[in-house]
Amino acid sequence: MGKNRLEAFSDGVIAIIITIMVLELKVPHGATLAALEALTPVLLGYVLSFVYVGIYWNNHHHMLNASARVNGKVLWANLHLLFWLSLIPFVTAWMGENHFKPAPTVAYGFVLFMCATAYSLLVRRLIAHHDKNAALAEAIGDDRKGKISIVLYLAGIALTWFAAWLGFLAYVCVAVMWLIPDRRIERKVVEEEREEASRAGEASPP
Amino acid sequence: MGKNRLEAFSDGVIAIIITIMVLELKVPHGATLAALEALTPVLLGYVLSFVYVGIYWNNHHHMLNASARVNGKVLWANLHLLFWLSLIPFVTAWMGENHFKPAPTVAYGFVLFMCATAYSLLVRRLIAHHDKNAALAEAIGDDRKGKISIVLYLAGIALTWFAAWLGFLAYVCVAVMWLIPDRRIERKVVEEEREEASRAGEASPP
Amino acid sequence: MGKNRLEAFSDGVIAIIITIMVLELKVPHGATLAALEALTPVLLGYVLSFVYVGIYWNNHHHMLNASARVNGKVLWANLHLLFWLSLIPFVTAWMGENHFKPAPTVAYGFVLFMCATAYSLLVRRLIAHHDKNAALAEAIGDDRKGKISIVLYLAGIALTWFAAWLGFLAYVCVAVMWLIPDRRIERKVVEEEREEASRAGEASPP
Amino acid sequence: MGKNRLEAFSDGVIAIIITIMVLELKVPHGATLAALEALTPVLLGYVLSFVYVGIYWNNHHHMLNASARVNGKVLWANLHLLFWLSLIPFVTAWMGENHFKPAPTVAYGFVLFMCATAYSLLVRRLIAHHDKNAALAEAIGDDRKGKISIVLYLAGIALTWFAAWLGFLAYVCVAVMWLIPDRRIERKVVEEEREEASRAGEASPP
Repeated sequence: MGKNRLEAFSDGVIAIIITIMVLELKVPHGATLAALEALTPVLLGYVLSFVYVGIYWNNHHHMLNASARVNGKVLWANLHLLFWLSLIPFVTAWMGENHFKPAPTVAYGFVLFMCATAYSLLVRRLIAHHDKNAALAEAIGDDRKGKISIVLYLAGIALTWFAAWLGFLAYVCVAVMWLIPDRRIERKVVEEEREEASRAGEASPP
Repeated sequence: MGKNRLEAFSDGVIAIIITIMVLELKVPHGATLAALEALTPVLLGYVLSFVYVGIYWNNHHHMLNASARVNGKVLWANLHLLFWLSLIPFVTAWMGENHFKPAPTVAYGFVLFMCATAYSLLVRRLIAHHDKNAALAEAIGDDRKGKISIVLYLAGIALTWFAAWLGFLAYVCVAVMWLIPDRRIERKVVEEEREEASRAGEASPP
Repeated sequence: MGKNRLEAFSDGVIAIIITIMVLELKVPHGATLAALEALTPVLLGYVLSFVYVGIYWNNHHHMLNASARVNGKVLWANLHLLFWLSLIPFVTAWMGENHFKPAPTVAYGFVLFMCATAYSLLVRRLIAHHDKNAALAEAIGDDRKGKISIVLYLAGIALTWFAAWLGFLAYVCVAVMWLIPDRRIERKVVEEEREEASRAGEASPP
Repeated sequence: MGKNRLEAFSDGVIAIIITIMVLELKVPHGATLAALEALTPVLLGYVLSFVYVGIYWNNHHHMLNASARVNGKVLWANLHLLFWLSLIPFVTAWMGENHFKPAPTVAYGFVLFMCATAYSLLVRRLIAHHDKNAALAEAIGDDRKGKISIVLYLAGIALTWFAAWLGFLAYVCVAVMWLIPDRRIERKVVEEEREEASRAGEASPP
């Protein structure tokens, strides 16, 4: 089964998720810059969530680039990931409007935690479907970053009960860690292309 | 006529339908987990509808994979299906906000019933357009699952007048039945590819 | 310049337009079927607008199928069409919520009239860009349907001041007229493919 | 890395941005044309923002047409642009609802200014990634239009504190300047195609 429609559908859903968050930025009634200031926590949450969804789109893009095909199980693992991503606008709005109070910040962390779990499930499904194609499995490696993220989310959720900004900080750390680009898959793909090219080069001229 | 734009447009509409449902999850005013608890019925409805739309996207994907081309009638049958799917966010919100009272639960079942009917109309249009291509027709077979679904929807609508949760249960059953993946078309396509490959294998070497 | 991204972008915008209209179906507060009844005019407007946007997508699809390439002017003529289409959800909601009172019904007709004008501008731009490719120009022909539509819209707007339902009826007539599929372009494309195939058939075997 | 998904994702996000702005056109309660008149400033802002987003889509389209491939840095520069574009609906609504009062008009200009900055960053990233492919760099040239825009935005923001309509006028000027089509890249691409074609023509016949 081709992966084109899976990519197209995921692009559509992620594009909508990243965009409808802006609908939660309720237009302030006043016409002064002070009225905008009251929106700061909502804006802050928006920026973080935008970056998160961007990271997921980016990694999703890389991962499917390294995959050759999909099957029914991959489709559902992907829908499962999209489900948790679709809750991000909701928890972002709840957290922002309540100025990072504990309960909404915990809920935000929980949704991020579930997204990370769903993503790693999807990766495993893809690897299982590509048993002969070692490129993807090798590229992901031991997925250290993924494991650190999950620990940081749980730490963030726990810390939130002491001070919500500590939890928020933990989530920011995860985002920053991922923003440092994950060159593993990209490098892997480039290497293979080079190898293939060199093999092709050896094969064709003589 | 090519099927690419039909797929792209359907992907777009279904991606939006599955995502805007989250806009009906109104952000609670309180900042406690108890405030979130009040949202449980809305969340429950959201999960069920997400799964339903996911099933439709999945089956739509499989069906068009097995189709070679479309015509004007198929375009309109597809728009008819999209129309009923587009009402799912509305009835989901109505049902969730009213905690599964009879009337909204009946309306929800009715929209699901119309979606199923529209889908089977679309299948028939596609088969009619592919009279020589027996793969699709054979793959769908007698469409037992489709018929059972329609009976279960009608049963669900009837049961709702006695106890709304019984109706909801019927709709959940249909979803579970479809989640068990419909390998018919997938298997069919794989078989044909194999046959073609073997035929091509026989043809080319000598 | 290729037409792929123009198609993809238009598909995206039209998919969103056709779907966000459902957001104007405000969830009723009551949980009875009577509460749903009060929504009838809004639903009626939704159905008509859904059909209209569907017709535009359909014709847009056909027209670009018959076009080989686009230029900057076509991009802007297309954006102009999308602008007027994007106002359909707004006027639909205004008309529906006011139970087809004159002013909103006139505004609805005006937006439809502007859509039709923008569409015919786009067609002319495309024909101008394909001066050697007579297929498109010939297929559109004298565009009788387009001209009748514009007259009917103006008639509908005028009639609305006497009785709003008369105006609404005029808009319904236009939709029905277009629903009878416009086979002109489709037929033309099929013919050309056949001619090409026969020419190719003549050319290759000897 | 291919540019297809980058294009598809950007098309999706821009399509949603351009369309959800219409959701800020709140349906007026009255059913008279006077009720519509009160919406004039909101409509005016909508038209300007629609044109702006259209210009960005148009230029984005041209620029990626002239690019051969993308990398991780380009993906993030693109997401950065999309972030600022996603704020346009918010500031448009704020400005429109407050009838072009100074603070919202300044905010509108600031977001436009950041969009322009993000766009020029994206252009630079793309050029850096195509060091051997001079077509893009040469086509953009000294980017005079881009620089004039940034000056006009800053002038607009400054002027707003004296009279908001002066600021608005400055933003309109930038839009008009860009509407005059930017043929640089288009011409460049055409020229190269011709050169390549002529080279191919020279190479193949003898």
